Amino acid sequence: MTDRNALDELCINTIRFLAVDAVERANSGHPGAPMGAAPVAYVLWDRFLRHNPADPAWPDRDRFVLSAGHASMLLYSLLHLTGYDVRLEDLKAFRQWGSATPGHPERGDAPGVETTTGPLGQGFANGVGIAMAEMALAASYNRPGHEIVDHATYVLCSDGDLMEGVASEAASLAGTLGLGKLVCLYDDNRITIEGSTDLTFKEDVGARFRAYGWQVVGPVDGLDLGAVGGAIEEARGDSGRPSLVVCRTTIGYGSPKENTADVHGSPLGRDAALEAKTRLGWPREPEFLVPDEVADHMRHALDRGDAEERDWKERLAAYASEYGDLAVEFSERLAGKLPAGWDDGLDGLFGPGSDAVATRAASGKVLNSIAAKAPALFGGSADLAPSNKTSIDGAGSFAAGDHSGRNIHFGVREHAMGSIANGLAVHGGFVPYTGTFLTFSDYMRPPMRLAAMMGLRVVYVFTHDSIGLGEDGPTHQPVEHLMSLRAVPNLSVFRPADAGETVEGWKAALARRDGPTALVLSRQKLPVLDPDEFPGVRSAGRGGYVLWESGEGQPEVILLGTGSEAHVALAAGRELAGRGRRARVVSLPCWQLFDGQPREYRESVLPPAVTARVAVEAGVTLGWEHYVGLAGETVGIDRFGASAPYQTIYEELGITAASVVARAEVLLRV
Amino acid sequence: MTDRNALDELCINTIRFLAVDAVERANSGHPGAPMGAAPVAYVLWDRFLRHNPADPAWPDRDRFVLSAGHASMLLYSLLHLTGYDVRLEDLKAFRQWGSATPGHPERGDAPGVETTTGPLGQGFANGVGIAMAEMALAASYNRPGHEIVDHATYVLCSDGDLMEGVASEAASLAGTLGLGKLVCLYDDNRITIEGSTDLTFKEDVGARFRAYGWQVVGPVDGLDLGAVGGAIEEARGDSGRPSLVVCRTTIGYGSPKENTADVHGSPLGRDAALEAKTRLGWPREPEFLVPDEVADHMRHALDRGDAEERDWKERLAAYASEYGDLAVEFSERLAGKLPAGWDDGLDGLFGPGSDAVATRAASGKVLNSIAAKAPALFGGSADLAPSNKTSIDGAGSFAAGDHSGRNIHFGVREHAMGSIANGLAVHGGFVPYTGTFLTFSDYMRPPMRLAAMMGLRVVYVFTHDSIGLGEDGPTHQPVEHLMSLRAVPNLSVFRPADAGETVEGWKAALARRDGPTALVLSRQKLPVLDPDEFPGVRSAGRGGYVLWESGEGQPEVILLGTGSEAHVALAAGRELAGRGRRARVVSLPCWQLFDGQPREYRESVLPPAVTARVAVEAGVTLGWEHYVGLAGETVGIDRFGASAPYQTIYEELGITAASVVARAEVLLRV
Repeated sequence: MTDRNALDELCINTIRFLAVDAVERANSGHPGAPMGAAPVAYVLWDRFLRHNPADPAWPDRDRFVLSAGHASMLLYSLLHLTGYDVRLEDLKAFRQWGSATPGHPERGDAPGVETTTGPLGQGFANGVGIAMAEMALAASYNRPGHEIVDHATYVLCSDGDLMEGVASEAASLAGTLGLGKLVCLYDDNRITIEGSTDLTFKEDVGARFRAYGWQVVGPVDGLDLGAVGGAIEEARGDSGRPSLVVCRTTIGYGSPKENTADVHGSPLGRDAALEAKTRLGWPREPEFLVPDEVADHMRHALDRGDAEERDWKERLAAYASEYGDLAVEFSERLAGKLPAGWDDGLDGLFGPGSDAVATRAASGKVLNSIAAKAPALFGGSADLAPSNKTSIDGAGSFAAGDHSGRNIHFGVREHAMGSIANGLAVHGGFVPYTGTFLTFSDYMRPPMRLAAMMGLRVVYVFTHDSIGLGEDGPTHQPVEHLMSLRAVPNLSVFRPADAGETVEGWKAALARRDGPTALVLSRQKLPVLDPDEFPGVRSAGRGGYVLWESGEGQPEVILLGTGSEAHVALAAGRELAGRGRRARVVSLPCWQLFDGQPREYRESVLPPAVTARVAVEAGVTLGWEHYVGLAGETVGIDRFGASAPYQTIYEELGITAASVVARAEVLLRV
Repeated sequence: MTDRNALDELCINTIRFLAVDAVERANSGHPGAPMGAAPVAYVLWDRFLRHNPADPAWPDRDRFVLSAGHASMLLYSLLHLTGYDVRLEDLKAFRQWGSATPGHPERGDAPGVETTTGPLGQGFANGVGIAMAEMALAASYNRPGHEIVDHATYVLCSDGDLMEGVASEAASLAGTLGLGKLVCLYDDNRITIEGSTDLTFKEDVGARFRAYGWQVVGPVDGLDLGAVGGAIEEARGDSGRPSLVVCRTTIGYGSPKENTADVHGSPLGRDAALEAKTRLGWPREPEFLVPDEVADHMRHALDRGDAEERDWKERLAAYASEYGDLAVEFSERLAGKLPAGWDDGLDGLFGPGSDAVATRAASGKVLNSIAAKAPALFGGSADLAPSNKTSIDGAGSFAAGDHSGRNIHFGVREHAMGSIANGLAVHGGFVPYTGTFLTFSDYMRPPMRLAAMMGLRVVYVFTHDSIGLGEDGPTHQPVEHLMSLRAVPNLSVFRPADAGETVEGWKAALARRDGPTALVLSRQKLPVLDPDEFPGVRSAGRGGYVLWESGEGQPEVILLGTGSEAHVALAAGRELAGRGRRARVVSLPCWQLFDGQPREYRESVLPPAVTARVAVEAGVTLGWEHYVGLAGETVGIDRFGASAPYQTIYEELGITAASVVARAEVLLRV
């Protein structure tokens, strides 16, 4: 039998050269990071990671996030070797169409990929969210003697991850929140694409993390397995603070160009690959070599995982016998199910005769109604909760001393907020929501894109959705944001016209299981559309409907609006009717939902024969041709806003019923 | 005569109550920060800031950036009191339509506002860019005994600014680059909107900045003018490191609700405003009181500024007599003029018979050709220079030891890169450019929006512009980005189809004086369109043109494309022609420019009578109805991409000539 040290070395080189060979075969990819970080990752997976390759969905597994997603072959190799359903053939199909092994790890493509990474900084912040999820679930469900939630979150990150602002934001929050089960292994190889990190990144990363309130362990030599293991041990030992383990590594270790940027993002090339094998004492062939003793050793993860999961299941059974209701709730939450009756009472929140109410305020009521029934709802705002109306009343704050609170204070950190929400969602057990002004959606587009890509149920509450916010002026007035968000595939953008549509927006957001929803809400008060007068409101969940029309028969003109401007369209429709025109008003709160309706329904709302169409929205006009075509008109804002009381801005920028009527009359005269 | 201490106090209270009264009158705004930070800002402006209120454009003035833009009344009060053309009437019109005093400081609205702030973190990072501009200009133009560039950059920032990731990114880079003339005053009031910073921000900010390589001074008591002055002195004394001066202040100082979140963002209310006046010994009326001695004292800034600017002008004259050519170049750069002949030779870069070339590579050549003649070009990439082709050959790196290099290494910090570019642009003397992959434009939208709002000439080089990047997969493949960027008002988005169009894109970007341009470039090689065969290419600067048509006469069908897909449209057009159709192919590299052409030109390219139109672009279809209407079709990608060799992805997702032909034939059959 190979001695332990030699076996470790063999395993590590197997990981390295699976990565090298896969990149060579694909003729594309990143060999440098896997070669350098293989020992660190190996120690973690071999000696610490609690997981069951046969059941990647085991809820109490430790989570491993490869924030440096370009090192994907490191992860794929580990998944293959430890017994996940990732075969050698999959590794050979690295970066090919339809394979389980895309260039960067994509959640859903290979089992064991917890979250999609690649855009730097995201995985790190996802890890913070995952660790928060664990602590929040533990606080809610563990009982004395019953630790049914108890797992660690490990992140492997690179220099580039730690340069990104989103990681700084998340790290500062993680320190404040005391996320003691979060361990971040920093692959400190001091090389980025443009060269040495001295060019751009001379900071003392350890000191920075200490300032955030983290435990910092190391630096340790990333080749010294004992030292790495000891450091991880130390990291695990501090249950009150997240830990950063600084591992000094050598990018492209073993290759002729090790320690240079050249080994970062391109295949080594056949000659250099062979030379690396020679240097590290690896057979030059065959490619994709997995020595039997490596396979044997690493697949012990299956036995260990099986035993650990069985033990957990026994403990869960014991828990269930003592806390039956909690156990059921826990299981349903992990399955992503909302409790029966979660939407009870919503339709009655804003009955006939309700006073005008800002949709942000309506949203706050809806959120609280749902949250009272659905404990999975967990979120908060980037320091704008009083404005966003995102607080769950009486539910406490999630804080270092008390992880049972349901209100997250993200601080002024929109980007980390979005990434943390993704972490909560991929962990499972939560329907995360976030809050900020719509204009600051720009700060968090990268994680929103990833939520859409991963198909995560995340709810974004974006208030102050237009020039309607008034005096704060153009920096705070979204103009292009609505359309920019509508352009994101698989992101539902819902801009309700009133409290009733807000209810439908929340319902639609929670009913979705396959992607995120942005709720776009007004600062200013809006009249409540009485369903008796406007029965269509209850169809807002279809994304669009006939709000009002002047009478029977084919309309001469259709006016379209969303949010606060649905009321502008309504006023214009009534005015046109008063002038003898057959006018129809269409409310279009969610384009994605409306476009997903059967053609028949869509054409019943927007009959193709009626080409005289005027849209009105307090945002850019680009995109509205999707509904009004080249024959129609859009009353919108193709400039930045202005600072003034909002009624003035609406008037000055012409977002008025009069403008809509004027455009409609021009169309009708043609 | 009032004694000095009493006079200082009087000045400070004047600032405070101008802010309070303006917010009261507007019934909207942020009194808390001005009340708390007034002493700090006063010390800076009274004792350190070198500026000339009579000439806000004096090139060698110190720069003051109010990163905490919500404290706008603090700045407006200082501008008014020191003699800028900001009258008391302007303060009374705070936050009203058309006033010089919008809710947040908007560059261009009031003299002395260096940059538009409000979105937190941006001003801080702008300050880093401004300080870089000063050092780069000094390195280029100063000569022994002639320090014609020598000014400081001061930033006043809040807790919220320092929570934002963009500030972290910029701070880390500023430390690495040794920006010794950057002084950041941190208004450490420990309150944000949701409450105490203990909720979210327990970190040791000073220790964090020390880790970045900054000098950290303080904390000092923000009410102790001597201590604040001493701290700024100390900050100014370290010429090798940027400095953070930590000033402990009390938000809403003097008001009944001081030190609470309640005084952050709402008027105090009449009673509380009066009580604050009473507490601080201020007359309850009149409102907007400026005691004569305060006016006298603070307007000394005019005399001092006049003397300082005259001195500088004399020194500049002495410099000019010794270094005539340099002085001319310096002046032209500050005036934003490019040297005559800056575009010489561009048209010949890619002559007939040129090999296929990726537009990113073409862009690199164009950049280098221009940079050789225009020293104002200054920029770099967020660690992707070798891929973005953004390096200026042989021009060295801008680094701590040597500020004469023209290549900026931003590190993996797209957000700070965008904000720093804004700082370079508002400083003057530079045409900044940035580089990253198009997909990461999402990381830097907030500063791009501000560049568009301020009308800054910034060039964004975005490469790897589609699924054409291939194996890196969906996280790295932009899909919605093109349309999302086109939605931003005043941002030109230019996606060239070949090297020749790339030349036109760069020309258009530099010819613009009133806004930024995004150049969207391919990773993959594209054939060069020979101007002899495709004479329209030279009109690419109009944003759109007829690339090719099958013959004379009105076309039956128009095919539209941008970038790499212009070639797909071209192939489809030829195929349709082969099938006997009269087809026209239109290249539309820049929608903003095309839409700005006279109607006659636009209709000559896209005759309204021809409604059979098919667009093709490797991105979302939303928005293309702007050109193809409801009668046309778009071949696009309404999903995320995939990891595979790019040719495979194009085939699998149907971005092919065959798809375009098929759609066109359906339209022609109708």
